[in-house]
Amino acid sequence: MPRNQQIVLEQRPQGAATVDNFRLVTSDTPPLAEGQVLVRHHYLSLDPYMRGRMNDSKSYAASQPLGEVMMGGTVGEVIESRHPQYAVGDKVVGMGGWQEYSVVDGGAPGLLRKVDASQVPLSYYLGAVGMPGVTAWYGLTQIIEPQPGQTLTVSAATGAVGSAFAALAKARGCRVVGIAGGPLKCAYAVDELGFDACIDHRAHGDLKAMSQALKAACPHGIDGHFENVGGYLLDAVLLRANAFARVALCGMIAGYDGQPLPLLNPALLLINRMRVQGFIVSEHMQFWPQALQELAGLVVAGRLRPRETVAQGLASAPEAFLGLLQGKNVGKQLVKLV
Amino acid sequence: MPRNQQIVLEQRPQGAATVDNFRLVTSDTPPLAEGQVLVRHHYLSLDPYMRGRMNDSKSYAASQPLGEVMMGGTVGEVIESRHPQYAVGDKVVGMGGWQEYSVVDGGAPGLLRKVDASQVPLSYYLGAVGMPGVTAWYGLTQIIEPQPGQTLTVSAATGAVGSAFAALAKARGCRVVGIAGGPLKCAYAVDELGFDACIDHRAHGDLKAMSQALKAACPHGIDGHFENVGGYLLDAVLLRANAFARVALCGMIAGYDGQPLPLLNPALLLINRMRVQGFIVSEHMQFWPQALQELAGLVVAGRLRPRETVAQGLASAPEAFLGLLQGKNVGKQLVKLV
Repeated sequence: MPRNQQIVLEQRPQGAATVDNFRLVTSDTPPLAEGQVLVRHHYLSLDPYMRGRMNDSKSYAASQPLGEVMMGGTVGEVIESRHPQYAVGDKVVGMGGWQEYSVVDGGAPGLLRKVDASQVPLSYYLGAVGMPGVTAWYGLTQIIEPQPGQTLTVSAATGAVGSAFAALAKARGCRVVGIAGGPLKCAYAVDELGFDACIDHRAHGDLKAMSQALKAACPHGIDGHFENVGGYLLDAVLLRANAFARVALCGMIAGYDGQPLPLLNPALLLINRMRVQGFIVSEHMQFWPQALQELAGLVVAGRLRPRETVAQGLASAPEAFLGLLQGKNVGKQLVKLV
Repeated sequence: MPRNQQIVLEQRPQGAATVDNFRLVTSDTPPLAEGQVLVRHHYLSLDPYMRGRMNDSKSYAASQPLGEVMMGGTVGEVIESRHPQYAVGDKVVGMGGWQEYSVVDGGAPGLLRKVDASQVPLSYYLGAVGMPGVTAWYGLTQIIEPQPGQTLTVSAATGAVGSAFAALAKARGCRVVGIAGGPLKCAYAVDELGFDACIDHRAHGDLKAMSQALKAACPHGIDGHFENVGGYLLDAVLLRANAFARVALCGMIAGYDGQPLPLLNPALLLINRMRVQGFIVSEHMQFWPQALQELAGLVVAGRLRPRETVAQGLASAPEAFLGLLQGKNVGKQLVKLV
């Protein structure tokens, strides 16, 4: 059996996460039992939600247990199978974790999904045509419910979720304004991702500046907002929201490391008769087939071709993950394992 | 024509409203033009939303203009009619304002509504079977959408909205927990309004104490909340909210006088996948007939018989209104004008 490199959670972060929170270990992959499949991971997905799970606090998902392999999405290839539905060579996406190989129960619903890598790059099943893409789709179609011509905003605009959001919103005839960190990301958002405008939050680092930038970029106000960040960005969006605006609350990465970030003026939700809804996409599996179909179609049509930031080798995962939390990646952050 | 006492907005409040913001004037009622109706008001409704309109700031409704008669709901009797649909003696509810008489265009949609005072007390059309009742109905049925057995909370529990909310929620098989100010109101909530429990916010005046009281009163957590007050009450509710809890945001009276009151931890909306929705009932007129029918039925059946606090004479309206803002009333605050 192949040797398997794994990264486990060594200790929980005190404040910001550091590389010392992780530890690289090596083990043998166990022999397969009847019904099991051995998958060699080609790519590991790094996602902001993982930071929340590193804390030992109440959240929608269980905390990442100490000493166990970090959870995470993976895409790879079946290299040994004792399950009739999987053959050697099948490309599969799953939650294999931060490791090079995983042994999966082939019969358990939802653990593995076969994918077609002939038209869509394999790595995209962790991004545009995977969980991040469906996240954008759900927030847009089920919470924001936009009308053509409406103005939508999204924070972390050039990330895996934001880039899918832009393509999906443009396909519905909306004006889409992104918020991202730095002039390079903003140029990428407009030049390659199809955003109508993108605001650099580093150049608009407080509520007043961000509110003014939103006013300029959204002359007819904001009808829908997809929140990945929280903090003063959300306060600024509320100041520019139109009546009956909707906010899909997907992430609040700005507050993951420390004290809760308050919402300055919740009365605006009442004044503007707004709807704010938090969600986690894994609780809405019934929408995935429909969402994945639309997302794959956009990729094949060349209307959703986001960049990826790829770190090489499992040992690089902790550093790449910390970079993701600091916004150093452009587009989907992956670790290539082959 | 009868002499008409009126109260106009003399100046906008600086911080808390005072009696000096108002001025009593007297005028003659004008002669009726064709199509008009002269209504003698029996009761004037005093409601928290009026405080918001006294400010000169962006809100869902136009500011109350300076020097003009204060807006407000009224119920009364037609004493002269030049409109074929109204006869002398008809009981009507409308937005007559803070005055003894009003001249109304009988043909304008939504300005006047004939009511039946034989089974429902006339004054109730300003409370339980009027705008406040429909407000409770809309928030409960269209936003909170409760299931039988769920636990719901409401602030300003003994007010006109809160008392209707309790009756409507009990009719749907829910546990209903109120939040009100002082032991007398809390006893009234449980003994007469049908609340399962009521928390005295004066005895639980900070986030920690309120959160603990909610935990005790809602051992299975909170599935839906109707917010009339805001501030630390809402923060405490969020700490006790169950997954997928809904908040109907109807009023934030705690912040009407001054600086915005922040929401301490909006990340809880995400963690609990909550939905928060602000609304104003006058934008949902299509639901009024259905709501009023249920509310009248509860009144006739004796299941919704809230108390009223009645000030006598138009000149008492400013003082009574300030008392309302301070929670001095029990149940619907009215001014009797006949």
